[in-house]
Amino acid sequence: MRFELMSRDSRTAGRRGRLTTSHGVVDTPAFMPVGTRAAVRGMRPQEVAATGAQMILTNTYHLFLRPGAEVIETLGGLHRFMNWNAPILTDSGGYQVYSLAPFRHLEHDAVVFRSHLDGTLHRFRPEDSLAVQVSLGSDIAMVLDECPALPSAKTELENAVDRTTRWARRSREVWRGPGALFGIVQGGTDPGLRERSAREIVEIGFDGYAIGGVSVGEDRDLASRITAHTAALLPEERPRYLMGVGTPSEILDAVIAGVDLFDCVLPTRNARNGMLFTRAGRMNIQREEYRADPRPPEEDCGCPTCHNHSRAYLRHLSVTREMLSGILNTIHNLHFYQQLMREIRSAIEEGRLQELKQKRYPGSACAATRGEVI
Amino acid sequence: MRFELMSRDSRTAGRRGRLTTSHGVVDTPAFMPVGTRAAVRGMRPQEVAATGAQMILTNTYHLFLRPGAEVIETLGGLHRFMNWNAPILTDSGGYQVYSLAPFRHLEHDAVVFRSHLDGTLHRFRPEDSLAVQVSLGSDIAMVLDECPALPSAKTELENAVDRTTRWARRSREVWRGPGALFGIVQGGTDPGLRERSAREIVEIGFDGYAIGGVSVGEDRDLASRITAHTAALLPEERPRYLMGVGTPSEILDAVIAGVDLFDCVLPTRNARNGMLFTRAGRMNIQREEYRADPRPPEEDCGCPTCHNHSRAYLRHLSVTREMLSGILNTIHNLHFYQQLMREIRSAIEEGRLQELKQKRYPGSACAATRGEVI
Repeated sequence: MRFELMSRDSRTAGRRGRLTTSHGVVDTPAFMPVGTRAAVRGMRPQEVAATGAQMILTNTYHLFLRPGAEVIETLGGLHRFMNWNAPILTDSGGYQVYSLAPFRHLEHDAVVFRSHLDGTLHRFRPEDSLAVQVSLGSDIAMVLDECPALPSAKTELENAVDRTTRWARRSREVWRGPGALFGIVQGGTDPGLRERSAREIVEIGFDGYAIGGVSVGEDRDLASRITAHTAALLPEERPRYLMGVGTPSEILDAVIAGVDLFDCVLPTRNARNGMLFTRAGRMNIQREEYRADPRPPEEDCGCPTCHNHSRAYLRHLSVTREMLSGILNTIHNLHFYQQLMREIRSAIEEGRLQELKQKRYPGSACAATRGEVI
Repeated sequence: MRFELMSRDSRTAGRRGRLTTSHGVVDTPAFMPVGTRAAVRGMRPQEVAATGAQMILTNTYHLFLRPGAEVIETLGGLHRFMNWNAPILTDSGGYQVYSLAPFRHLEHDAVVFRSHLDGTLHRFRPEDSLAVQVSLGSDIAMVLDECPALPSAKTELENAVDRTTRWARRSREVWRGPGALFGIVQGGTDPGLRERSAREIVEIGFDGYAIGGVSVGEDRDLASRITAHTAALLPEERPRYLMGVGTPSEILDAVIAGVDLFDCVLPTRNARNGMLFTRAGRMNIQREEYRADPRPPEEDCGCPTCHNHSRAYLRHLSVTREMLSGILNTIHNLHFYQQLMREIRSAIEEGRLQELKQKRYPGSACAATRGEVI
């Protein structure tokens, strides 16, 4: 994997870059739609690509359980399995073990957990997570880390940082590619712990660095400040990835703080619940006021949903829980997110990231742009 | 609406025709995918059209309840509402009243029923059903009929024929278009009653004739014989529509008996349950044997699903209940049905409908081809 920084925003830490992988190029800052079980919910791969997405994320935990990494490997890897001919980032499975498994126990060198599907017991060492990700044929693999929910006691956060560093070191030692490997910085909301974690992870040395443990229970403003604080600790020449975040304004804040990669289930999950992202804010398409509204969801949107369908039709589909509802809403929301990323990239190139932020989210200056310290 | 008979199969009653409506042309024999609530489940309109479907069916009962005919009329009719720019046939709502409503009571000139959604009480006269279908902007409207489940006592079947004729007469009297109006023949499995019903309905005179009350509880062979018996009673120069039927072999049988139009939920509903139609028979894509099978569901199929995806991937999606499962399976099944109709139309043109039937379903000669009487 190659990462080039092509330009910088003159007044913020925002960067315009390009990731080159063996499956193609990703313009950064980039947003990755989430394809949990080797499918972005309700989307055919070409529809995902048509929104402008250049890379997706899939979940190692889910694919490890079903259909199993060996099945996907036999079939030529994840790209062929799901017919997605562009880069794929796989998470380590850690986050799902912590959030979904009905039982898990952390050992010195592994996490032991029960499947949320059938209760079968599994033991994942950092090496096992990487082996699964290699079987999947991931373009960017993530190290197995420990991500405590917030708030957590300081000792717990410290232990998580220790374990994350220890596992990152083991991961680095066994890693032979062929994809890239990203380390993950933990440390919760403690600035000092974030500094220690970043120092240790950067010292081990990875192809890119992720900021983990953000938006796991803490408030939005604190998350934004921790992100900015952590991003500034990471080497300039490597891509920075903020895991699992976020709303359009959170993404803008993080870009301003120097983050390059994002993933989040918001645009896809909310779509299935009838919530559309628009420039004017969130739109609950089920509202009575849209019952006979012939306008597209968003007047100036160029997506196929807005091009072909009215608010009234989308309301009807959502209210009657038609399958097509989630599909059309997802197309719109993914387009919205990709359009946001296109505007962000242009704004960086033209040195007007601040203006974009002020225009889109006036009055919500983020920690990074206020120059605040934590 | 215009209906031309273009050619006939030399050795069966099969006919190759063309329906021309103000929204376009339909080559017959034709299969209409079901778009119950103004959407074929999980399909965007252009995807339905891409399968080769030239006309769809939507359900008056469902659209009357949600979003309401007046909403759809305000928005310019059903075609614009759902962005389907080809012919639409609407049913009368009767069948759903009988099968879904938790309460219904038949009066001399109306059916009174409670909504299965909120229990509200409604009264539908034949005129009301037509008014709703006109508001929707239907290309082919159906008269409100009475369709008793089978088996039913002879008096019940007789009463249903009486009521169906009475309502058909009222419908004909008030009908002012602009679309076409089809009458419906009832009579259950009683050949004499079918003859009386057909005589009465044909005497009233409609743009086309439907065979109702088939596949509502009776066995397949009897259904096939009743269909053939009834089709032969209908005027040559008008389209004949077998409502709610059926499997590929049932459709072939009915075409051989001279039927022109079909609708059925089988290809779409079964798709969502993981059942694919193939030339080799039904395929349960969830079976363990497909776990790592790299082949397309059907080797020689030209549909986008078979072109892009493996059995292993489709199995994975179906087993994990991914939204994309129903979508990809529906695309295949609708393509399969439309491909069947294309082959049927070619076979009629070339005078080899019998051969097609024997090739596809050897040993299952239908009543019509056996020349049986009931």
